[in-house]
Amino acid sequence: MNPISAKLDNKFDFEGSRLYKSWRFIGFDDSFKVSGSISELRGKNAVLVGCVTAGTIPEGFVYEEIEIDGVEATQKIVSVIRRSKFREQLKCIFLSGITFGGFNIVDIKEVFEKTGIPVICVMRRYPDMASIKKALLRIHSFEKRWKAIENAGKILKLRDVYVQISGCDVRSADRFLHLSTREGKLPEPLRLAHMVASAITHGESRGKA
Amino acid sequence: MNPISAKLDNKFDFEGSRLYKSWRFIGFDDSFKVSGSISELRGKNAVLVGCVTAGTIPEGFVYEEIEIDGVEATQKIVSVIRRSKFREQLKCIFLSGITFGGFNIVDIKEVFEKTGIPVICVMRRYPDMASIKKALLRIHSFEKRWKAIENAGKILKLRDVYVQISGCDVRSADRFLHLSTREGKLPEPLRLAHMVASAITHGESRGKA
Repeated sequence: MNPISAKLDNKFDFEGSRLYKSWRFIGFDDSFKVSGSISELRGKNAVLVGCVTAGTIPEGFVYEEIEIDGVEATQKIVSVIRRSKFREQLKCIFLSGITFGGFNIVDIKEVFEKTGIPVICVMRRYPDMASIKKALLRIHSFEKRWKAIENAGKILKLRDVYVQISGCDVRSADRFLHLSTREGKLPEPLRLAHMVASAITHGESRGKA
Repeated sequence: MNPISAKLDNKFDFEGSRLYKSWRFIGFDDSFKVSGSISELRGKNAVLVGCVTAGTIPEGFVYEEIEIDGVEATQKIVSVIRRSKFREQLKCIFLSGITFGGFNIVDIKEVFEKTGIPVICVMRRYPDMASIKKALLRIHSFEKRWKAIENAGKILKLRDVYVQISGCDVRSADRFLHLSTREGKLPEPLRLAHMVASAITHGESRGKA
């Protein structure tokens, strides 16, 4: 654990209260079946699942489809949030990384600006930016995708995961992670979104989010 | 509350223990978009979602599709259970009623016989058997569907819901309901399966399971 998160933990325990347990969060994950070559997948759809929780308790789900290696994931997430009955109550939007449906990259700055809700991208591992850049250079719309990557900002270590944050400070992000995580490293909405997305694609939930 | 459930409640509180909290359950619900006439829907698919919980905590999901007004829901549920990584741990299978995808009726006796896992069909309201019979007479395979309805057995009131049970006694069914319900009337796996199935069909979770 890095010095920042250790400090925040102490502060946070002190503030714990029942009120926070009802804060609502949404977490998005994607899934698609990898079969054949990458070029065969292009143009097909991946499923995008969002899970809404009150604290760590599931309260609802949203479903959308996005194009594999497309460029509309940002807009789709904004639309899903805007039309959701939960939009007024959401304290933050968790994303499992910023690359969805292959390299359909979510611009978290744009999602925050268009929804007014802070966005926290959560990753188990530090992303391999060199490989990502190499892959992006091989598909269309490099400039747009790379801008989304730059807009995601600095990668921080927080509570055993890596995060990129838009729309709130590190202290708030730490609190959101704390309040939405039951056990393990991942916020419950991301854990559940992963389970549902992989079940839709493969028939049964697979692996870890 | 009827006399049976009151008696069981007392007995059950006495037996509550942490052990039971890890018992796994699966609950199935379906969803499909109603648009146009019923005859236009026939032959199309409904989504069938199963949610696995450990106690009330979601552990995984399964996904399948069934034909609207088809006759293969029983076989699909048996297959999903048989291929699930959770099959050895499941204490019971909850179904939201026995009619899935319109009148694709699940034979709970057959599901129990082929999986060895008790099946509890859970309904908020007492079903209108006269209307169901009238509808069944209008579509093919009446005999098969009616046999499934007869095999579902007696409708009992238990813990504020109506149930039909195959493969276990009322006392066990009461325990399974108790251990899988967080709040409200419905077991958590049914509540979650409903939320996911309706989100896949409508874009966002709707109404009550």
